[in-house]
Amino acid sequence: MVHPIWLGGKWEPASSRGATYSATNPRTGERLPDLYPVSNWDDCDRALETAATAFGQLLETPRIEIAKFLRSYANKLESHAQQLAEIAAVETGLPVSPRLKDVELPRTTNQLRQAADAAADGGWALPTIDSKNNIRSQHGAIGPVIVFGPNNFPFAYNSIAGGDFASALAAGNPVIAKAHPAHPTTTRLMAELCAQALAESKLPAGTLQLMYQMSHEDGLRMVADDRMAATGFTGSRRAGLALKAACDSAGKPSYLEMSSVNPVVILPGAIAERADDIVEKFCSSCLMATGQFCTNPGLVILVAGPETDGFVVKVAAKFRDVPAGVLLTEGVLKSLTENVQHLVKSGAQTVAGGMRTNHPGFSYENTLLVVPGGRFLEDPLAFQTEMFGNASLFVLAHDLDQVVEIIGRLEGNLTGTIFSAASNRSDEAAYKRIATQLRQKVGRLNDDKMPTGVLVTAAMNHGGPYPSTGHAGFTAVGFPACVRRFSNLECFDGVREEHLPATLRNQNPTGTLWRFIDGNWTQGNI
Amino acid sequence: MVHPIWLGGKWEPASSRGATYSATNPRTGERLPDLYPVSNWDDCDRALETAATAFGQLLETPRIEIAKFLRSYANKLESHAQQLAEIAAVETGLPVSPRLKDVELPRTTNQLRQAADAAADGGWALPTIDSKNNIRSQHGAIGPVIVFGPNNFPFAYNSIAGGDFASALAAGNPVIAKAHPAHPTTTRLMAELCAQALAESKLPAGTLQLMYQMSHEDGLRMVADDRMAATGFTGSRRAGLALKAACDSAGKPSYLEMSSVNPVVILPGAIAERADDIVEKFCSSCLMATGQFCTNPGLVILVAGPETDGFVVKVAAKFRDVPAGVLLTEGVLKSLTENVQHLVKSGAQTVAGGMRTNHPGFSYENTLLVVPGGRFLEDPLAFQTEMFGNASLFVLAHDLDQVVEIIGRLEGNLTGTIFSAASNRSDEAAYKRIATQLRQKVGRLNDDKMPTGVLVTAAMNHGGPYPSTGHAGFTAVGFPACVRRFSNLECFDGVREEHLPATLRNQNPTGTLWRFIDGNWTQGNI
Repeated sequence: MVHPIWLGGKWEPASSRGATYSATNPRTGERLPDLYPVSNWDDCDRALETAATAFGQLLETPRIEIAKFLRSYANKLESHAQQLAEIAAVETGLPVSPRLKDVELPRTTNQLRQAADAAADGGWALPTIDSKNNIRSQHGAIGPVIVFGPNNFPFAYNSIAGGDFASALAAGNPVIAKAHPAHPTTTRLMAELCAQALAESKLPAGTLQLMYQMSHEDGLRMVADDRMAATGFTGSRRAGLALKAACDSAGKPSYLEMSSVNPVVILPGAIAERADDIVEKFCSSCLMATGQFCTNPGLVILVAGPETDGFVVKVAAKFRDVPAGVLLTEGVLKSLTENVQHLVKSGAQTVAGGMRTNHPGFSYENTLLVVPGGRFLEDPLAFQTEMFGNASLFVLAHDLDQVVEIIGRLEGNLTGTIFSAASNRSDEAAYKRIATQLRQKVGRLNDDKMPTGVLVTAAMNHGGPYPSTGHAGFTAVGFPACVRRFSNLECFDGVREEHLPATLRNQNPTGTLWRFIDGNWTQGNI
Repeated sequence: MVHPIWLGGKWEPASSRGATYSATNPRTGERLPDLYPVSNWDDCDRALETAATAFGQLLETPRIEIAKFLRSYANKLESHAQQLAEIAAVETGLPVSPRLKDVELPRTTNQLRQAADAAADGGWALPTIDSKNNIRSQHGAIGPVIVFGPNNFPFAYNSIAGGDFASALAAGNPVIAKAHPAHPTTTRLMAELCAQALAESKLPAGTLQLMYQMSHEDGLRMVADDRMAATGFTGSRRAGLALKAACDSAGKPSYLEMSSVNPVVILPGAIAERADDIVEKFCSSCLMATGQFCTNPGLVILVAGPETDGFVVKVAAKFRDVPAGVLLTEGVLKSLTENVQHLVKSGAQTVAGGMRTNHPGFSYENTLLVVPGGRFLEDPLAFQTEMFGNASLFVLAHDLDQVVEIIGRLEGNLTGTIFSAASNRSDEAAYKRIATQLRQKVGRLNDDKMPTGVLVTAAMNHGGPYPSTGHAGFTAVGFPACVRRFSNLECFDGVREEHLPATLRNQNPTGTLWRFIDGNWTQGNI
């Protein structure tokens, strides 16, 4: 039996009888039994048509209904936590605990509830009023959004439950979810709970839809279709750039999180002061979840010297000691193998790992590579090849000037990190030189902490300069700002009060909504 | 003598000796005497290198220095108002008064001062703090920005003085201004005042630069260059889309205002109630400045009937009575001629005008075209051809359903307008149906007022869905929001307080800066 897709509020067979795929258990390499359909254009077209109709209906639906749905969905996910975590563990190789059940699922339901709060409150839209001239503006829904989730967060970035899903819906948009092929059953179980919550809600039946797979060509055609408004994507640079080109040429915004090596600079004073502590933190950050985080510290920049040599030896020892984890898919194993080889060919030396393990399933030795700063500078792009997985490249600069030069050659990244001396100010001058330059290359700057761990808070930026994302002005994580990605700015000039949306009328609709009125933020009325 | 370009704080001869152009007096069609250089890649490269260096210096410059410069520049423009208005009148055919001296220049200096306030205040950056987790973010400078100004606002959108210039600089970015070829002497005089103000300021000498012209290829190469961060453009759809494609493929944001027909729906109740008033308002809006506004009402949608026929007759009479104005350039005249012909060929009828006048210089009869709604729907894109200038197309729908259908086929526009009965509620049901749909197609919705007249206020949106602009989430007019176009979002996670920008430290740096701290907007400290 081939599982149906979820279109227009119903579970229906895909139009393309016969074209199917199944996922793999990455711990064993064995195929899993469930069969999922590869949709043809008929399915895509139905999904688009349904979403376009739902958008019109959704515009007439009070925002509180979106909030109620999101909360109800979060509750349902929580009450199925064990089942969801178990199947996600089979499909991803990630542990039920500590991770899927006790970290990622709570994060996911927390995101859905923050999205609900954002939808109910309306402050994400930055309501702005010039009362004297009766000109009023705010962000508003943009239209149907397609979400492509990644392989590495089966819950928190899932196309039918994750951050892009939640923020697109919170803005008032229908969502077409495109499942990641590595965890279709996890996605299906979530979608079934989503469907229940939707059926119990007052939202239009076509508000949310799920497709498992489609051809590359149909995916590009969908994002550029007249009925589609915007795209959310988390995944590889290659796939992201193809989607971006399709969206760009059709004049559609796309929000893409593509790749990042997350440079970490460890200054001499920090090593002198607390090398062992930093070794622990680095190894934990780099090897956790087999290193499969977008913010994995994949490029560490150090100043060469005896203490740095000692630091490298300790990290290498730890990399050899810690058992290698499971990789998500055969594709991740293949890319990691190729990318390590590419770096070695380019001139990096292997200090630990560098080979596939002999475990069953998909696994690669924890891998540490080292390259001198001078060599890095001869081919900086080659050495910024992302090794998605349990691997990192250490660049040993011969002095601080070379560190600065290396940073000047970095591509855009999600994060950048500086460890500096905490007990004395020995690294302060270096910090200042480096931070000024590093800030321009990254979306988030960390002091003395590893880049993994992306807290869901209003102040977070999970974004960064191209090519880490497609637009450095937006964050994928952190309500309410993440909601604004999936919006248009809309303005009402001289519009009669009864024609205005509630959030822009003279009276504050909730008494708690923050609005920018005549140059000041206030929760008051006009 | 060929005028020099302004690079790195100096007026220098362009590298390309010989390649020059001059502007034309549109009232007479005669060439003006001043010769301006067409730059080659060497000039472009020098400008880019200078801007990249200036950016690093500007990051270290207190924001108050940017504000001081902007205010000083505004003062200098004011004290040269007469001279500037006179030369701009020669180059554009626009009147000194009422327009250049008493409307557009004050608007321009007002924008510069609002930009100064935004730069000094910092609230444009939406500083956001999670105090418990010590995560802090705000928007920050993006890097060198190139600004391409349009032909129709020699002051307020000038690449060296207008809204894009002011907002890019307020965000902390160097600007490379590309003059519009129709008014180089106006631009040069402004740049000379700009250069004086810059020399007296504490900003780096390379912060601002001016080039007059370059090849199409060099323009595309510049916007995609590694050293360029973003592009601001106002002008034709063709040029805008070419720049967009170049920016997109290099992963650079571009903010483009390209074209708009600004649909105006006049409902039956409004015509019955106040046809004469609306005739006056429409004609004034459509013919002012010879119709050369981005928000010119170029497409009017009416329900056919005897009262509408009377309305059309009155507008046509007025169009014939009012003397035709001067068009900005020979290119505008040529496009207007071609576009009117294109609409007529597509099936529109000429009710007034439709020919070049016999005045010297560039002038075309005030032109009113009419097309039945059914015909419009057979080729909706053809009938949305923008007739930039003193022309408008009236679409006569046979009923309200057809009005709604027509609106469903509209492209993205800067503005949309609905006139409805004010004394009774006879149009309310129609208003609701139309507004819901029209809002999705436009950046700004107007009730009972014509779309021309873009007030510079925080609540303004001068933007709209593609292809009216390149991204419907941003406005080109209205501080502080317009500043955010030229920024990255930057985040500081666990960063020590002494390493933070002043605007994100515990103490509010001014006591008046609004910050979003732990979910509330406040001017307080942490």
